Amino acid sequence: MIDFRTHPDDYRHWRLATCGAIATLALDVDENGAIAGDYALKLNSYDLGVDIELSDAIQRLRFEHPEVRAVVLVSAKDRVFSAGANIPMLAGASHIDKVNFCKFTNETRNAIEDASANAGQRWMTVIAGTAAGGGYELALATDHIILVDDGATAVSLPEVPLLAVLPGTGGLTRVVDKRRVRRDRADFFCTTGEGVRGRRALEWKLVDELVPRSGLDDAVAERAAALAAGSDRPADGRGIALPRLERTLGDDVIAYGHLRVALDRARGTATLTASAPAAPPPADPAAIHAAGADFWPLALARELDDAILHLRFNEPELGTWILETQGAADHVASADAALAAFADDWLVREITLYLKRTLKRLDVSARSLVALIEPGSCFTGTLLELALAADRSFMLDGTFEDSNLPPATVRLTAMNAGPLTMANGLSRLASRFFGDDAALAAAHDALGVDLDAAAADALGLVTFAPDDIDWEDEVRIAIEARTAFSPDALSGMEASLRFAGPETLETKIFGRLSAWQNWIFQRPNTTGPDGALKLYGSGVQPTFDRNRV
Amino acid sequence: MIDFRTHPDDYRHWRLATCGAIATLALDVDENGAIAGDYALKLNSYDLGVDIELSDAIQRLRFEHPEVRAVVLVSAKDRVFSAGANIPMLAGASHIDKVNFCKFTNETRNAIEDASANAGQRWMTVIAGTAAGGGYELALATDHIILVDDGATAVSLPEVPLLAVLPGTGGLTRVVDKRRVRRDRADFFCTTGEGVRGRRALEWKLVDELVPRSGLDDAVAERAAALAAGSDRPADGRGIALPRLERTLGDDVIAYGHLRVALDRARGTATLTASAPAAPPPADPAAIHAAGADFWPLALARELDDAILHLRFNEPELGTWILETQGAADHVASADAALAAFADDWLVREITLYLKRTLKRLDVSARSLVALIEPGSCFTGTLLELALAADRSFMLDGTFEDSNLPPATVRLTAMNAGPLTMANGLSRLASRFFGDDAALAAAHDALGVDLDAAAADALGLVTFAPDDIDWEDEVRIAIEARTAFSPDALSGMEASLRFAGPETLETKIFGRLSAWQNWIFQRPNTTGPDGALKLYGSGVQPTFDRNRV
Repeated sequence: MIDFRTHPDDYRHWRLATCGAIATLALDVDENGAIAGDYALKLNSYDLGVDIELSDAIQRLRFEHPEVRAVVLVSAKDRVFSAGANIPMLAGASHIDKVNFCKFTNETRNAIEDASANAGQRWMTVIAGTAAGGGYELALATDHIILVDDGATAVSLPEVPLLAVLPGTGGLTRVVDKRRVRRDRADFFCTTGEGVRGRRALEWKLVDELVPRSGLDDAVAERAAALAAGSDRPADGRGIALPRLERTLGDDVIAYGHLRVALDRARGTATLTASAPAAPPPADPAAIHAAGADFWPLALARELDDAILHLRFNEPELGTWILETQGAADHVASADAALAAFADDWLVREITLYLKRTLKRLDVSARSLVALIEPGSCFTGTLLELALAADRSFMLDGTFEDSNLPPATVRLTAMNAGPLTMANGLSRLASRFFGDDAALAAAHDALGVDLDAAAADALGLVTFAPDDIDWEDEVRIAIEARTAFSPDALSGMEASLRFAGPETLETKIFGRLSAWQNWIFQRPNTTGPDGALKLYGSGVQPTFDRNRV
Repeated sequence: MIDFRTHPDDYRHWRLATCGAIATLALDVDENGAIAGDYALKLNSYDLGVDIELSDAIQRLRFEHPEVRAVVLVSAKDRVFSAGANIPMLAGASHIDKVNFCKFTNETRNAIEDASANAGQRWMTVIAGTAAGGGYELALATDHIILVDDGATAVSLPEVPLLAVLPGTGGLTRVVDKRRVRRDRADFFCTTGEGVRGRRALEWKLVDELVPRSGLDDAVAERAAALAAGSDRPADGRGIALPRLERTLGDDVIAYGHLRVALDRARGTATLTASAPAAPPPADPAAIHAAGADFWPLALARELDDAILHLRFNEPELGTWILETQGAADHVASADAALAAFADDWLVREITLYLKRTLKRLDVSARSLVALIEPGSCFTGTLLELALAADRSFMLDGTFEDSNLPPATVRLTAMNAGPLTMANGLSRLASRFFGDDAALAAAHDALGVDLDAAAADALGLVTFAPDDIDWEDEVRIAIEARTAFSPDALSGMEASLRFAGPETLETKIFGRLSAWQNWIFQRPNTTGPDGALKLYGSGVQPTFDRNRV
């Protein structure tokens, strides 16, 4: 079982140090620290375990270190920055493990770019030794890349020539779309195993700065200070601790503080029920800071994040996630109001950005998402995003005969109207009503209003609104049908329908690049018994089927 | 061997009739007319042969019928519009055949949208019987869809529930991105085998107009007239005939009038050499119309189009296409000048649009493209697009020792600065210099100037400019290396690097949707011995591997 919870004290592969506004994150992979399997993590190559720690470090820098304005990514090893994803690990991994691994590493790199773009925490990379494949791709996620000009240090994306796979963490997209390397130069670069170094790397925009080894320390300090100078993070902020997430893992239930996940293996579903705060949440910045990780929106985000990753990696046969909520809508609305009112507070901003990233994880999860909106639920604001993220939603019109709970309502808040953007850069509402400005405006006009099933249906916020008589059959049949379809066809369909409208670096990476990579991961030339990935390191050259597809 | 040349007199599956400004294209598939294999084309289902005729009809409507301003797509069969791509054909097809088939059918549908958007020839569909899968996707490519409201006629995309594949000709993308169907409704629609009919189809924006059967003829006539009314096609234009394309197919050479294709099966390459006009081409509209299909830009476009399709389908092991030119640059420039000067002439506009579509075919071909710019070549304007489409280009700096030909030059013309857009909506120059406005402006400033290798290199128009001493080794090594890489990894890499910048419906279809489909085509749940596609029609239900990837 993969556990995503860790702490800097437990890191085996990274060293995190902060000094005032500057943090240094040093990659120092423990060769014997593979998360599973008997491969050796040579040359600062990484597996999922290394990336789980990186993800944790990014997160802690955001919440525990408001004072950090620039992060310097370095290698703690001589003559190598990172050899990228570990090849024997990849060669031995199942298809599903490879795909899950790439998705998580992509999300981690996106989190770095989110810190730079939105949280005043800029990242830079110092490459003073080979940065190959995923090693260079990690650098590509940062704002500034310094390359040592020693005649030897190179950056490379050798996946195509050496392994017959694509760079798996956004490298192709970031080279042409982010760094705007000319496409023919990118073509040469991506087919050149030994990579590019020195002046050509700079001229081709593969790196930002070329520094002789002797001047490296000064150059790094200067550049880090310059990056830090533009930050709006508070000089006097006090970080909040992210204690170990508590959860109870049962055979059929995973219980968190505000989230319960019920596993139905016979049916192939997981039901995630998010609870509103039990009491009104803190409503001013001081109280929010005092509550820290217990502040409901942050606590829920952490739990949801963990649950999504746990289910993705450890419960691959549960193909449909049913999304439910319960509790007091007013308390959710209060929390949302606090997030909106104090959006300029660094911690509140971090919480909102974390909710955004967590909901994005939901969007790119290869699971069918069905929201059930019933009496007793609280699909309000942030929690309504769960229903808007769903592929389909059902809202009961009226009450259940055997219950005295009043009819369900849903309520939009300011959190639905902007900050929780999807990978395409639009809010879930704007994506939903893409091209229908009137419908979007009508939804925005309804902010703060409790909407019953008829009203929610009229506004287009729910898919279907059956009454008590039809509810059980309609929901049951929909879920049974869903779980009977080919999981692969559903993954491709959902990935295509969820992101209407504009494309971004992120959607290109998750939609276009990942789909090609997944295809290549299935091709005999790559993963067949005589494929390049299987034969790598054996001394035997693969013989490819030369048909071009 | 697949031959893409046909003529309405030879159609087995379509009937094309024109009446003034309105053309009617009726699908009437000959059940016994499969292009290869022993499947029956029941219920107006189609295979490549049906689509080759459709593609031909689209082309002839453009060139032979300037008077046609609206095209009405109908079924000639009762109670069925089209059942989409033929399932037994798909089930029996190799992976490469499936992918090639989908790509060509996508290009055909894009050609319909190009006619509507750019050539004043609007398309509409009349659905008076089941339109399933590819049948409905064909309608989605047209501007207006009329659905008969008879309580039975439905539109559907049943691929996911019935076949465990995706709609293969842009259906998912066009539903949410073009027709802007709400994503949860699209989700329901794409998982509902029986489809959606009547008022719901209209409310959900799956169709544009609902008409009772009794009023159908009047409604179609009225709508076609309305579509035609907005057209800028000439009322008095005289079409030009597209005679059968002449070519000589040898074992190692395919010879056209202005194009020669040399096949090197040992090396795995095809060398395409395009020739400039032998004499100055006609330079006024009357002379261009008189020349008709012999006008060099049109003749070359037809030959290049045919060669690309021939190589894609019939020579899949030739993974690298080497692009060369020869002849008088001034004649190419003259042709380009005529295309630019008379861009408002309907025929000149059609020729430019056809060049655009043909070059787009090159962009999405799963082949490595290498341009060689040597003495005697004429990479000018339209022909320079070949080098700009290439993944990599080499330009000889100077002369060959054993030749008295002067050094090669390249020349930009107005054709490089706008009209020949890629699928991303940008010119190849703008894509090349995406994010580098100064470089783009510098290239535009050099229009009309003969640029030697140093100048072309300085402007970023070529990748490498070796001299006589290095040329042979450098080119040979590049091509040898290329042909040694995994064809699959190259396809994924090239598809990712060629389209920097904005995304469009087309890039989404070719990049995102096709990549997912190709992945699904490789998955055991779909194409394994017990996969849904193999078992379809057998009465046996597939048992899926339920792991979600």
